[in-house]
Amino acid sequence: MHSIEQLQEIVNRAIASTKYTQKPTELYEPISYLMELGGKRMRPVLVLLSTELFGGNVMKALDAAIGIELFHNFTLMHDDIMDKAPLRRGKPTVHAKWSESAAILSGDVMFVEAYKMMIKVDDAILREVLDIFSATASGVCQGQQADMNFENREEVSVEEYLYMIKQKTAVLLAGSMEIGALIGGAEKDQAKLLHEFGENLGLAFQLQDDILDVYGDPEKFGKLVGGDILANKKTFLLIKAKELANDNKSKELAKWLNGTSHEPSHKIAAVTEIYDSLEVRQLAEVQMHQFVSKALSALEQIGIENKSKKLLADFARALLIRQQ
Amino acid sequence: MHSIEQLQEIVNRAIASTKYTQKPTELYEPISYLMELGGKRMRPVLVLLSTELFGGNVMKALDAAIGIELFHNFTLMHDDIMDKAPLRRGKPTVHAKWSESAAILSGDVMFVEAYKMMIKVDDAILREVLDIFSATASGVCQGQQADMNFENREEVSVEEYLYMIKQKTAVLLAGSMEIGALIGGAEKDQAKLLHEFGENLGLAFQLQDDILDVYGDPEKFGKLVGGDILANKKTFLLIKAKELANDNKSKELAKWLNGTSHEPSHKIAAVTEIYDSLEVRQLAEVQMHQFVSKALSALEQIGIENKSKKLLADFARALLIRQQ
Repeated sequence: MHSIEQLQEIVNRAIASTKYTQKPTELYEPISYLMELGGKRMRPVLVLLSTELFGGNVMKALDAAIGIELFHNFTLMHDDIMDKAPLRRGKPTVHAKWSESAAILSGDVMFVEAYKMMIKVDDAILREVLDIFSATASGVCQGQQADMNFENREEVSVEEYLYMIKQKTAVLLAGSMEIGALIGGAEKDQAKLLHEFGENLGLAFQLQDDILDVYGDPEKFGKLVGGDILANKKTFLLIKAKELANDNKSKELAKWLNGTSHEPSHKIAAVTEIYDSLEVRQLAEVQMHQFVSKALSALEQIGIENKSKKLLADFARALLIRQQ
Repeated sequence: MHSIEQLQEIVNRAIASTKYTQKPTELYEPISYLMELGGKRMRPVLVLLSTELFGGNVMKALDAAIGIELFHNFTLMHDDIMDKAPLRRGKPTVHAKWSESAAILSGDVMFVEAYKMMIKVDDAILREVLDIFSATASGVCQGQQADMNFENREEVSVEEYLYMIKQKTAVLLAGSMEIGALIGGAEKDQAKLLHEFGENLGLAFQLQDDILDVYGDPEKFGKLVGGDILANKKTFLLIKAKELANDNKSKELAKWLNGTSHEPSHKIAAVTEIYDSLEVRQLAEVQMHQFVSKALSALEQIGIENKSKKLLADFARALLIRQQ
């Protein structure tokens, strides 16, 4: 069985050796470009880890793992157009480097490539894998649309927020792991347990991301700390703060959210102080811990003990360690 | 066996009774909207006709037929964004009515819905159908990108043009028919013959479209006659005219193509006169007839005689009747 680093290496080697050289080049070059920008390869690694958990050979799951990474990057390519993002991992986004039309169409063909990779699984699990993959893909699109809708809405409930991050982020981790499990030879009910693990892990991850965006160590976080606050992003923290604030606090929060001329560092400090006074960080952590517990409980129900299972449990438990 | 009109009716009823009611509505309403704008339903009808040709029940092919129509409309939704088209069948395009982001994302989820419909075929042909569908989808994207590239190129050869229209238009007819045949119980080699029929039929159709855009009866054509000329669109006629023109004619043609202040009707009349003098219409017709012959020859090799085969042959032969 492989370590996380070894699995990342396997994924990166497979990506580096797959060239999208078909014509027209405007359609295929962006695929190679985006795939080779790097990243932690969390989703394909989880596919491979799930295969190994059930005693399968990771090489048998590699096509599907790459298919998942292709799908994930296709969604990034289209999301970046919608968000008008100029940069992705510090490099120009596809629509900025080529054109918006190229990014739309290259994304479309990338999605086809993702399906082509998924279709390579064995006949015995083909329909099952494709059903999971298609349901996952629909979920991710729904999550992205819900996220965009939230930007234009005054009020979003915690429940709606959790459903949105489930669709946008967690279902892909869940689908990746369920597919990996099936390729590894898992029975459907066992694969479903891993789906449950992945979904709760994804939810916990997103909550951690919300927390770190405000409370993270700028050096470790990799993104600008306070970015969500500056963008008035409706994260778990902001939604919960609005819910809990009394009249005075509500007005103070609204002042910072609605103002346009605040010094960025002042706004970040003031909103963080409101969060602190309402203890929304603690509430987010409680919620996150619940998701981690659910994930671990699903994992425990899988009656296998091996190194891969330990890696998955470690992965989840690492979220419980409070990070600054 | 059904007539073309009966098959259109079956397709239209299926579309009218399929509601895309999932949430968020911004994602699913555009699917219903675009699917219900109407049209001849040529592609799904060809799926059903191909199934009947091999003795299959059309109801067994209906999901795949709708899947093909979903795919086709997904490409229209994204093409309309790239072309900045305000109208589709006289109604606002999806990006005009909702937003560009909604059109990107709704198209993406529509593509997933198309795959979901294709996945419903029997296990015995699942892999085969998905391979054909994915290859078709890649081809259509390639054709659309090639078409966009041609707009920015000075010279395009006839060979390049024919390859582009094969990808953009013909492969989808070919794929639709091949899939319909497989659902109808055809052997792979028989289905391939129908693929060949569909591909050549599609090429002939596109050439007819090029001819009718210049020489069609305005009342029957449904689009503005001369539109391609006004847009300097690199059709078979223009490419061939550039190829055949002597120095004088080249200069005259270039004058009309490069000028920006021509009265539209003058430009249409003058370019049509150049086409007439170089007899490019006749050359397009010869080329079109060759494709129709190839299509009919592939059809004849299918050793079945029934009403569906006669309908398909009539469909192709109708292209041989010179239309004004």
